[in-house]
Amino acid sequence: MTAELLPSWAAGPTRDAIVAFLREVEDVDPRSRVAVFDNDGTLWCEKPTYPQVRFFVDELRRAVASRPDLADRTEYRAVLEGDRQTIAELGLGRVALALVELFEGMTPEEFTARVARFFADAVHPERGVPYGSLLYVPMLELIDELRRRRFRVFTVTAGGGDFVRAVSMDLYGIPPERVIGSSVSYEMVRRDGSLHIVRTSELEGDPNEGPAKLPSIQRQIGQRPILAAGNSPGDAEMLEYASTGEGPTLAVLVDHDDAAREYEYEGVAGTFTPSEGVLDTAARLGWTVVSMRNDWVTVFGEPGP
Amino acid sequence: MTAELLPSWAAGPTRDAIVAFLREVEDVDPRSRVAVFDNDGTLWCEKPTYPQVRFFVDELRRAVASRPDLADRTEYRAVLEGDRQTIAELGLGRVALALVELFEGMTPEEFTARVARFFADAVHPERGVPYGSLLYVPMLELIDELRRRRFRVFTVTAGGGDFVRAVSMDLYGIPPERVIGSSVSYEMVRRDGSLHIVRTSELEGDPNEGPAKLPSIQRQIGQRPILAAGNSPGDAEMLEYASTGEGPTLAVLVDHDDAAREYEYEGVAGTFTPSEGVLDTAARLGWTVVSMRNDWVTVFGEPGP
Repeated sequence: MTAELLPSWAAGPTRDAIVAFLREVEDVDPRSRVAVFDNDGTLWCEKPTYPQVRFFVDELRRAVASRPDLADRTEYRAVLEGDRQTIAELGLGRVALALVELFEGMTPEEFTARVARFFADAVHPERGVPYGSLLYVPMLELIDELRRRRFRVFTVTAGGGDFVRAVSMDLYGIPPERVIGSSVSYEMVRRDGSLHIVRTSELEGDPNEGPAKLPSIQRQIGQRPILAAGNSPGDAEMLEYASTGEGPTLAVLVDHDDAAREYEYEGVAGTFTPSEGVLDTAARLGWTVVSMRNDWVTVFGEPGP
Repeated sequence: MTAELLPSWAAGPTRDAIVAFLREVEDVDPRSRVAVFDNDGTLWCEKPTYPQVRFFVDELRRAVASRPDLADRTEYRAVLEGDRQTIAELGLGRVALALVELFEGMTPEEFTARVARFFADAVHPERGVPYGSLLYVPMLELIDELRRRRFRVFTVTAGGGDFVRAVSMDLYGIPPERVIGSSVSYEMVRRDGSLHIVRTSELEGDPNEGPAKLPSIQRQIGQRPILAAGNSPGDAEMLEYASTGEGPTLAVLVDHDDAAREYEYEGVAGTFTPSEGVLDTAARLGWTVVSMRNDWVTVFGEPGP
């Protein structure tokens, strides 16, 4: 049986740790089998830019095509010109909120249709393939094994919940209610005899990153996960939360150390970054660090060696 | 087959409407099969007081037993003395928040244990049976039929999400992540080498009632339900939202008109109550009104006629 488990994972201590956990959970109450996965850089490729940022920029270009005056707005001009210095001066939060305004007044159904179009049409700038094909096959394999063991599997992302939901079922088999992300506030409107909710330009609560992932897990899942996977400082609290609970637990940190097949970088500092690097946190707390280069036979489904 | 469907429902137009919906949804994309049920007065008995209020009062008595000074606080004294006039003068919201303070600093696990003890020990003041046995059998039957048709079934309650979650799986087969309720804010703490979240005394966002149920459905489910069931003005927007969506939809309003087997009352006005009575709203929008007296063969599982 072990020989067939997780074939995209190379033999070694990382795979052994995961397989050991999969065995241990056979004794865990099925109700406690909850697993949470970060999304950007943990399930899909986040380099050279987050897919959601690319989506925002595409939507901004589209909006400017019909309303050229938009290009005069400071935040939008900086984005359109790729002016990193101005973006940094304005602050990423302010720029992001300005982009969120582009969708003000849209229903979730309208927003979802935009995102679906993006995933159907856009291609990765360096690889020339659709974003939806740049998923980490070993992680999908792990999710499948967890589901086979009756885990409820969630993605807990700093990205927009409604952005990820538009494709999470197709990409991961994760239904929308199992996506927990940053969210905009909605307001209720009556239109054509039907009741709708529409997006505002405000965020609902904090961006879902770092310590904020814990209350949002409680709010939407209502229990502590026993497995968490992430790749950045913004996942550190979530991993620590899962790994310091009762019974068998597993914290998985994906280390992007594969310049040849993917990218090489240390998890980007998030808004709530702890002062130590996330690999140091992983070492201190005994998490299972996945070397993309050594532990994965395949990354995106390319043939193995 | 029809003869075996929903045996706790009396033959007639109400049952016919529900059965017709169950047939129609066979043609609906399974991904769209989302159903939401209010809880108090829709799944469990809410008279003479909400179970959660009874729980709060029990917990207050317990707290006062070890800290008698608590009884001097205006809000608590009014609750302990059942002084309705003072409670009304203070405002129900202020009194409720004072009671929420009793649990400040508790982890969700600690809070869940308290709630579980309540459901194990407390008995209904007028019926002398545990609260968990006062569930509407016909509604449980409907939930079962929906699940058989691959619906994802949620409860969307104005009550505390974590209160309902403590028992939702045992009572309804609804796992914690499918309970959407009012919620307190949590904050993160490190304790004994483990990371925890603990309750604060603040609410996170609005109480989950009336129009507020729509954004919380979007935030936690991420799609519009096609079936909604409720019993009060605080459910009106949720029912209208479900019933004015695309394709086959069903809005079910439980009318408490059975003084003999349950209680007779019109849904209590919520914080965000529309000005018309909820039965009038139901008539105007063509919802399926369930007469507890006429449409249910059994209410709590007592033998039929």
